[in-house]
Amino acid sequence: MANIQVNKEAHPFDKTRLEALLNRRFFYAPAFEIYGGVAGLYDYGPPGSSLQSNIIAEWRKHFIVEEHMLEVDTTVMTPAPVFETSGHVARFADWMVKDLKTGEVLRADHLVKNVLEARLAGDKEARGQAAAPPKEDDKKKKKKDKAKAIAVKLADEVVTEYETILAQLDNYSGPELGELCKKYAIRNPDSDNEVSEPQQFNLMFASSIGPTGQHPGFLRPETAQGHFLNFSRLLEFNNGRIPFASAQIGRSFRNEISPRAGLLRVREFTMAEIEHFVDPEDKRHDRFSEVRDVELDLLDRHTQVAGSAKVTRMTIGEAVDKGIVANETLGYFVARIHQFLLKIGINPTRLRFRQHMANEMAHYATDCWDAEIQNSYGWTECVGCADRAAYDLTVHSAKTGHPLIVRQALKEPIVTEKLTAEFNKKTFGKTFGKDSAAIQTIIGGMDEALLAKLQGELAQGATTVTSSDGREFKLTPDLLTIEKKTFKQSIREFTPNVIEPSFGLGRILYALLEHSFYCREQDVERGVLSLPALVAPTKVLIVPLSAKPEFEPLVKDVSAKLRKAGIFSRVDDSNTSIGKRYARNDELGTPYGLTLDFASVQKGTMTLRERDTTGQLIGQVEEVIATVIELVNGTIDWAEACNRLPAYDGVQAVE
Amino acid sequence: MANIQVNKEAHPFDKTRLEALLNRRFFYAPAFEIYGGVAGLYDYGPPGSSLQSNIIAEWRKHFIVEEHMLEVDTTVMTPAPVFETSGHVARFADWMVKDLKTGEVLRADHLVKNVLEARLAGDKEARGQAAAPPKEDDKKKKKKDKAKAIAVKLADEVVTEYETILAQLDNYSGPELGELCKKYAIRNPDSDNEVSEPQQFNLMFASSIGPTGQHPGFLRPETAQGHFLNFSRLLEFNNGRIPFASAQIGRSFRNEISPRAGLLRVREFTMAEIEHFVDPEDKRHDRFSEVRDVELDLLDRHTQVAGSAKVTRMTIGEAVDKGIVANETLGYFVARIHQFLLKIGINPTRLRFRQHMANEMAHYATDCWDAEIQNSYGWTECVGCADRAAYDLTVHSAKTGHPLIVRQALKEPIVTEKLTAEFNKKTFGKTFGKDSAAIQTIIGGMDEALLAKLQGELAQGATTVTSSDGREFKLTPDLLTIEKKTFKQSIREFTPNVIEPSFGLGRILYALLEHSFYCREQDVERGVLSLPALVAPTKVLIVPLSAKPEFEPLVKDVSAKLRKAGIFSRVDDSNTSIGKRYARNDELGTPYGLTLDFASVQKGTMTLRERDTTGQLIGQVEEVIATVIELVNGTIDWAEACNRLPAYDGVQAVE
Repeated sequence: MANIQVNKEAHPFDKTRLEALLNRRFFYAPAFEIYGGVAGLYDYGPPGSSLQSNIIAEWRKHFIVEEHMLEVDTTVMTPAPVFETSGHVARFADWMVKDLKTGEVLRADHLVKNVLEARLAGDKEARGQAAAPPKEDDKKKKKKDKAKAIAVKLADEVVTEYETILAQLDNYSGPELGELCKKYAIRNPDSDNEVSEPQQFNLMFASSIGPTGQHPGFLRPETAQGHFLNFSRLLEFNNGRIPFASAQIGRSFRNEISPRAGLLRVREFTMAEIEHFVDPEDKRHDRFSEVRDVELDLLDRHTQVAGSAKVTRMTIGEAVDKGIVANETLGYFVARIHQFLLKIGINPTRLRFRQHMANEMAHYATDCWDAEIQNSYGWTECVGCADRAAYDLTVHSAKTGHPLIVRQALKEPIVTEKLTAEFNKKTFGKTFGKDSAAIQTIIGGMDEALLAKLQGELAQGATTVTSSDGREFKLTPDLLTIEKKTFKQSIREFTPNVIEPSFGLGRILYALLEHSFYCREQDVERGVLSLPALVAPTKVLIVPLSAKPEFEPLVKDVSAKLRKAGIFSRVDDSNTSIGKRYARNDELGTPYGLTLDFASVQKGTMTLRERDTTGQLIGQVEEVIATVIELVNGTIDWAEACNRLPAYDGVQAVE
Repeated sequence: MANIQVNKEAHPFDKTRLEALLNRRFFYAPAFEIYGGVAGLYDYGPPGSSLQSNIIAEWRKHFIVEEHMLEVDTTVMTPAPVFETSGHVARFADWMVKDLKTGEVLRADHLVKNVLEARLAGDKEARGQAAAPPKEDDKKKKKKDKAKAIAVKLADEVVTEYETILAQLDNYSGPELGELCKKYAIRNPDSDNEVSEPQQFNLMFASSIGPTGQHPGFLRPETAQGHFLNFSRLLEFNNGRIPFASAQIGRSFRNEISPRAGLLRVREFTMAEIEHFVDPEDKRHDRFSEVRDVELDLLDRHTQVAGSAKVTRMTIGEAVDKGIVANETLGYFVARIHQFLLKIGINPTRLRFRQHMANEMAHYATDCWDAEIQNSYGWTECVGCADRAAYDLTVHSAKTGHPLIVRQALKEPIVTEKLTAEFNKKTFGKTFGKDSAAIQTIIGGMDEALLAKLQGELAQGATTVTSSDGREFKLTPDLLTIEKKTFKQSIREFTPNVIEPSFGLGRILYALLEHSFYCREQDVERGVLSLPALVAPTKVLIVPLSAKPEFEPLVKDVSAKLRKAGIFSRVDDSNTSIGKRYARNDELGTPYGLTLDFASVQKGTMTLRERDTTGQLIGQVEEVIATVIELVNGTIDWAEACNRLPAYDGVQAVE
């Protein structure tokens, strides 16, 4: 119901109020809070869990059901050899620096970013430019993750240098980050101490499997390997045909160096990952035409390397045609990701797709686009969409000896002619004895040109071949013949490529909460989450005037009818005013409210309230139920509901 | 559709065939199979994942939605202090023994069980009694988890001893298991070597959190602690009222000593847990009357300790009335668990509820009933239903200092009268100086009788009190007065008790697969999974006569109509006979099939096939779709469908 987000702009976004709301209403909270908490671990409470389930349910529909994907559910605990092969043991790491005096550990790229950004802010202040006013939360609490801006003017060329560094920060290697720290005298802002050279820290949690400790294992940092290792089974399940996709929703773990930024950087999170297996020689997608006209904000790698963050708006069709996005299948998923995010309520003006730069890409990827969502922490990667090429299947196959390939019957067999040596078994063996095999191998290894030369010499009567240890063997036409033969290949074997859309559900959920939050125009204390009905934790709130028994049968009846229509409602019969109860449920993002009062008991009427407009309609109970069901299912919007039912400006003020 | 499981009894249950089917159709398979696998870790393929999701969806409906439970989603990674407090670090362990020569590690209780069972089987054989015929899989492969039965007759009293031990095996401590090994000369059946004394092995996977290794952590072995630590937030979310329940579906991990038995004993598994918080002084349940008449097979602790495994059939109402099940709330959940298991297709004659014996109960429980499901491995605990009393909330509260209590306004304040000492501040301080506080503490600690005595003596003019170090102090009426005072208590504070139903979803899923499997009467090669439509991975199979384009519009239309009704269908247009395609989908448990042939294109008819009877009906496309929707939703059964649509005995043989 994006069309009815009225008065959302009345007050500037206030993060402190949002955070207070999310904490108070238990959307999520630091895990083990009564034990002092652990950075990067969060628990979801009832509304957060429901919101997450609803996002997952829609994801299943939008991707798995719509595309007939094969769902899998593989283990988190993984024996070490798997991640040795995949490259994670060697390379799934971040660069960290240590404060040389306190020993505090910082992520190197975050340190550079925070310090340079603070200096730029200080420069702006010194130049008397309007810097953004300090936010509520910056004033209130010590923000450990931000360096403090001090008004110091920088040289113009330094400003340009800093801006260029920041635009391509993800492109620097660890040693390069170390050089930046030295060149720009970057220190730990908390202590003003120098920092060490960057060192790699592997982000996987280690454990060991079994009672004797003989099997080292890791918790998966992504679900992807579980798909790849089961590739042969999945291919067989799909009757040997490709393209097809597998999909998995599950927990992954990353032992982040110093997680801050709430749900955006955590050590345990739920992912939804798709591995779409495709013919490397044909990355077209047969439904690409359905998304060709989807318009996106794209930020390609060339723009970033040039030091800019300016997006280009274009259709995915154009982006693929121009080679900006590598292929149709990658483009198809980029567009589908865009559609999904809009459907669940992400603000389209705060969504962009950013291409990875060459050094930034994961070790396995050949092209990668991140869906980045803007929020109070900046632009955050929420979905990655990578072309992993044949990397994973190739390395696992090479390591295990298990072929992870597709065998495809060719429609037209490929016919080739080649010179081939045929040996006269009797005479050859007699002549060369135990050297026979060695000589045959030498000839078998010859290319077309060498064989042609040999053929010519044999036609002259005799020739010689030389073994690797320098011995010469004389060959004559009675020992072998060399002739053109016809070969027919009717099966093609190949390792498929993989296109991988990978969703961080917690990040999407948090960005959605920021995009949905606003305060009522008339009262900044009254926060609202304008979540679409599709994902709202509760769809309908039933509010009887009081908990008195006379309302009970009606409440049960309405609630049963909604349940039968598959709609999850809650009753709030607590001992407070109807207005307060609505306000409390606006905080939970409940889009519709039904009020039952004495008129309901006496005249069979019920009022229907919409969260964002706070508009109210009235009608007979059955009529109102039918309307609210259609509203929740999205078959009508609020404007249409207003056409169907008369407005209510009732006797008792419920706001 | 339990009423249409025809010809299920045609062939005896054949585990080898079931296992082959599950593996071939990728219900699940050993994880990391191409790396040689790791014991106790399994991946679910597409049909296994769907079956699991459908069981979870029904669980959500049956428990969370029906009872308005508060869902949470808490982290797996847990800092060590939490499990130190909960007792898991000290006590969440199994007893293992080592083969004294090979070093092989065995679970002590499993070793005793396997060896004694094998001896009993050998005894039966020696007595010429009909032992169960060896199963296919026992013949085919080396069964490492079973000791071999050798025909040796035992003395009658030894047989009785063994049977008694087996009936209460879960009741033995580690040292007792060690004594059994010595007394009955139990050795490792694989090597015939002696085994060590039992040692405890903690079943939690350990890891460490953060880059400096300073925070030891464990992977949770159950989801429960996540509920308890958030108790205060949940209580607040529920407006401070109890009873209420939280619920969570998620992954847990147990580093089993030597996992065998497929999905029944794994190192990583999905659980669904409920923590129902209840007033310790009132464990009635306001919906108990709805389940009072549910009949169950109960095996209480007295029966087991007496060496028997004979169940008693009774209603849950009777069991609670007689005190066999501790209280109504525990009984309510036992009955609801029973209903849930039947709904998803568990065979009621192979389901029992077994009470834990005193030594068997987890360290936190006061009463516990397991839903055990019979399968080829024996009776397996699939759901635990424990009364954990106030254990967890109490220990976490004591450790953290955070009150985990309910504060309840009393309807009638409790008014009490008590003798109370009031001190004359001026004179008391002047008289006793720095001893004042000590004397006041002594008097403050006196009970009613002592105070009455003091009051009497003061009325006489004077008295003395003696300090802990033996000094005497003289008290006179000018220093203090002792009088009756009235106290009014309007708030009651208490730690709630917890009733915990805890579901192992993988075990339920496996037992369900065994209960569902049978082979067609006419052809033992044709396996069927008679899963209820409610949980079947695919509800409807659409089978066009061929993949020819003329069928395409109709296939799309039927599939779209089903999707609109929320029903998940699959199309099988592969290049094989319709009969073969049906057989393939019988293996996946697909309950209904729709066949589209030339008559569909020409006359608009379609046939509907039922999996278990293989009966077929015919009708106009719309009629048939309406019927199959009702069948899937369970509003009609197959008999009713047969009333509505004529039988089809069509021209082309489709079976």
